[in-house]
Amino acid sequence: MKKTTLLINCPDKKGIIATVTNFILSKKGNTVYIEQHVDRELKEFFMRLECEFDQDEEKLARFKEAFNNNVAENYNMHWEMYDTEKKPKMAIFVSKYDHCLYDILSRHASGELKVKIPLIISNHNDLKPVAEAFHIPFKHIPVSKETKVEAEATQIALLKEHKIDFVVLARYMQILSSEFVNYFPHKIINIHHSFLPAFPGAKPYHSAYKRGVKIIGATSHYVTSDLDEGPIIEQEIVRVSHIHNVQDFILKGRDLEKIVLSRAIKHHIERKVLVYNNKTVIFS
Amino acid sequence: MKKTTLLINCPDKKGIIATVTNFILSKKGNTVYIEQHVDRELKEFFMRLECEFDQDEEKLARFKEAFNNNVAENYNMHWEMYDTEKKPKMAIFVSKYDHCLYDILSRHASGELKVKIPLIISNHNDLKPVAEAFHIPFKHIPVSKETKVEAEATQIALLKEHKIDFVVLARYMQILSSEFVNYFPHKIINIHHSFLPAFPGAKPYHSAYKRGVKIIGATSHYVTSDLDEGPIIEQEIVRVSHIHNVQDFILKGRDLEKIVLSRAIKHHIERKVLVYNNKTVIFS
Amino acid sequence: MKKTTLLINCPDKKGIIATVTNFILSKKGNTVYIEQHVDRELKEFFMRLECEFDQDEEKLARFKEAFNNNVAENYNMHWEMYDTEKKPKMAIFVSKYDHCLYDILSRHASGELKVKIPLIISNHNDLKPVAEAFHIPFKHIPVSKETKVEAEATQIALLKEHKIDFVVLARYMQILSSEFVNYFPHKIINIHHSFLPAFPGAKPYHSAYKRGVKIIGATSHYVTSDLDEGPIIEQEIVRVSHIHNVQDFILKGRDLEKIVLSRAIKHHIERKVLVYNNKTVIFS
Amino acid sequence: MKKTTLLINCPDKKGIIATVTNFILSKKGNTVYIEQHVDRELKEFFMRLECEFDQDEEKLARFKEAFNNNVAENYNMHWEMYDTEKKPKMAIFVSKYDHCLYDILSRHASGELKVKIPLIISNHNDLKPVAEAFHIPFKHIPVSKETKVEAEATQIALLKEHKIDFVVLARYMQILSSEFVNYFPHKIINIHHSFLPAFPGAKPYHSAYKRGVKIIGATSHYVTSDLDEGPIIEQEIVRVSHIHNVQDFILKGRDLEKIVLSRAIKHHIERKVLVYNNKTVIFS
Repeated sequence: MKKTTLLINCPDKKGIIATVTNFILSKKGNTVYIEQHVDRELKEFFMRLECEFDQDEEKLARFKEAFNNNVAENYNMHWEMYDTEKKPKMAIFVSKYDHCLYDILSRHASGELKVKIPLIISNHNDLKPVAEAFHIPFKHIPVSKETKVEAEATQIALLKEHKIDFVVLARYMQILSSEFVNYFPHKIINIHHSFLPAFPGAKPYHSAYKRGVKIIGATSHYVTSDLDEGPIIEQEIVRVSHIHNVQDFILKGRDLEKIVLSRAIKHHIERKVLVYNNKTVIFS
Repeated sequence: MKKTTLLINCPDKKGIIATVTNFILSKKGNTVYIEQHVDRELKEFFMRLECEFDQDEEKLARFKEAFNNNVAENYNMHWEMYDTEKKPKMAIFVSKYDHCLYDILSRHASGELKVKIPLIISNHNDLKPVAEAFHIPFKHIPVSKETKVEAEATQIALLKEHKIDFVVLARYMQILSSEFVNYFPHKIINIHHSFLPAFPGAKPYHSAYKRGVKIIGATSHYVTSDLDEGPIIEQEIVRVSHIHNVQDFILKGRDLEKIVLSRAIKHHIERKVLVYNNKTVIFS
Repeated sequence: MKKTTLLINCPDKKGIIATVTNFILSKKGNTVYIEQHVDRELKEFFMRLECEFDQDEEKLARFKEAFNNNVAENYNMHWEMYDTEKKPKMAIFVSKYDHCLYDILSRHASGELKVKIPLIISNHNDLKPVAEAFHIPFKHIPVSKETKVEAEATQIALLKEHKIDFVVLARYMQILSSEFVNYFPHKIINIHHSFLPAFPGAKPYHSAYKRGVKIIGATSHYVTSDLDEGPIIEQEIVRVSHIHNVQDFILKGRDLEKIVLSRAIKHHIERKVLVYNNKTVIFS
Repeated sequence: MKKTTLLINCPDKKGIIATVTNFILSKKGNTVYIEQHVDRELKEFFMRLECEFDQDEEKLARFKEAFNNNVAENYNMHWEMYDTEKKPKMAIFVSKYDHCLYDILSRHASGELKVKIPLIISNHNDLKPVAEAFHIPFKHIPVSKETKVEAEATQIALLKEHKIDFVVLARYMQILSSEFVNYFPHKIINIHHSFLPAFPGAKPYHSAYKRGVKIIGATSHYVTSDLDEGPIIEQEIVRVSHIHNVQDFILKGRDLEKIVLSRAIKHHIERKVLVYNNKTVIFS
């Protein structure tokens, strides 16, 4: 039995659930799990469906075609279908901070993150030993104002070459160009060290300290061409008080950053995220 | 259009979702929202479904009969069907602590809790003024070792007379007999002032203080004949430290108790709870 | 034995703790509890000290004078001294939302908030019954653009008449003038229904919903003439997801608002807050 | 200037703070930071004090002697004095789970944990590559029922040889003998994968799943000869629901375990923990 994950969104209409589950039944598939969300305000319907088929690749291709023609078009659906058991390919971009990288690689090593990591790209050489300790190929691509265009071209070529499905910016300290971002729409996951939209920009812990907040946070979001404005995937917070200085904020924040980023990566790997209207639906 | 909520659980089997949604479609109903859970270990299927019908009471009764004969029996379903917009009737039992009572009544007064409260029952007279301030009838039924059987008989008679759907023990300091509990299976909601199963019994804050825990909690659960062992509906916690004494634990715990209890009540009112195997499925 | 609370801040310098504790000892006082904070960056010292004296009012007045002349002036201290057991007088300002008011009044009724509440002031009449249920005098002072100056004059006169120590804005929906605010520096506590500085202004839950955040918050702060910019006393958060709409945010936010506001009130009542540099030191 | 940390506990008595701070002043020391706790019930006084001296080793030894004779004995103090800037030596015990080890070693590598790690001891060889990746010596000491006494003797000899100050059990799956434990009173930190005292013993996540709790936790505590009963240093929790199975509990628990353990280690390294009456005072 082949496990398949189906993600759908379309304008809300009567009978979608019955139509889709019946179609699957008619193709001798079994709907194992269904989860659904309706945005009443925007009248938009979202569904994530896990089903099983006793089919080979070829039949599945025919199924997709039939689904598209007989179901999806009628409902004006945006839809994606994935082989549930095929691990996606993830590239990690880093600079000098190592805590997120250690966290991701150790989760990967222990089997917690069901993903392939064909490559780590960095604008510095500092974290090469970490990559090597975990036996992941490491590419050093320096970036300066002058070389940025060229560097991004090299990066994109590498990502294509390795058939990368999505990119994780694990405290990568360069701003990606709109061109790069548009190459991977909703496929680049960033971790921002702030409880967005509070304290956007470069030094959130300093700003948070100055404002005297009692709680700090971290935010993982898809990168869009609007800096720090992309769809939020996950957030987490931790309490602080007057006894903590900026350095304490940074240390506490690190724990947030790695936890939040790895949760976001997991949601993405399990195809549990649908983006709509610059917001995310995260299925459970 | 009449809104109906359907709760189902049954052994997991192929085709349940399609069968149920098709049946509703065939009766000219519209499935508005569906949520589902499968316990893979126990192979049990759970579903909560909201649908709309353009039907009167009589037709709905026929729908129920048809559903039972044509669907439910085939799948060996346990099922419940509710008029989504009909407010259930809740009785509150209290003793002397007032924080949960104030919380429930003020949420009710502000329209947050969509429930009818025909009566408050207490073994003491202390909270009568609170009931009166919110214009809810208050019945004083003293309970002693000698009068317990009789007192419970009076309580049950009152609950029947007012057609009470479920009971909330808002820090009611008497243990209900098995007879009473069995009258209202999974219809009595209690708040226990501890993070169960830690510190069961009468003085959890004292025990927690003695053990030196760094976090305390509160637990809302359905009452069963096993004291403090019923299915857990909701829990919440708060941090404590060495600076807090038992009295501080009690004060912090009060805030937990009322929040946790009111969340549990809301889940129950919205028919979002299914009990199975002494655990709860809480639909979102 | 008379219990006294002493709050001090001054430029950090060698020997402050020994000097102060010795002075108290020399006056036959006993330092029961001391808590201290040093802002290393600003080189500012903060201390809260509880001590006991076997003294009458008159001797205490002489103690204060001696402390000022022999200790405070040498260290350039800002200091405040309170009779620990004297309950401060709090006025509550409300409009139409009742959840914070219910929460404060029920905590007061149960003895949890050790404060006197001589009066509730509102620009509407809606919450008069709530005030009456708790037997607190209620003053209706309507506010419009035209009458605002006059209304505030009436409010200030009332606060003076009742010797009010501090004011709580329990979802009071009017912006106080700078004149009013300057009358009560760091004596007006507000609750803002957002995790400040995110989503300042009037409709934070709507903004939070629109941005698609996964966590919402509430913030209690002292009111300054910069709207929503005053020193933060307390914050708390709750998780939300795509399944929650604006109305759900508002409901969840209510629970935050009342908890956060009551915690802030408690800190203030217990003289545990020192304001410095638009931030708060909250002693434990 | 030499920074020194002083930890004291003794029966509560008038004048302790003034006596100690004066003594330090009399020895030309400067009290930089003081924190204090009084257990009113047990009438026990606790204090942590950071001070600076312009002194060499020899003078410090004389200071200690004078402190003991002139201050400590009068108040019946238990006291400890540490060179604030000297890193303590920590040994890590592991078995097969790697998540806590990765977390500790990456925090150490990034400079967050100010501690020396002269050795990792394990009853299995599985994690040797992790130790090697971080360049920490790894000792494989197998333990079986028959060899346990001998193995512990080897372990103790190694710990002595490396002048280890404290031991961290990072999911070490062997129970230490009372003899071993008594060698290092309040110097062995364990992480238990449960919200103690709920679910003590070997399979807490399974028990938690079976009970249907809505929150799971992890607990770090000092090891005593009563299994899972030692003084709690830190706890943290995470929400779970019916959608999570035992495996999900375990994965979520891992994140708790590593965060909680590293927090406990940090408290210990910074000499912020005092143990009394099987509970901990954790200074901020």
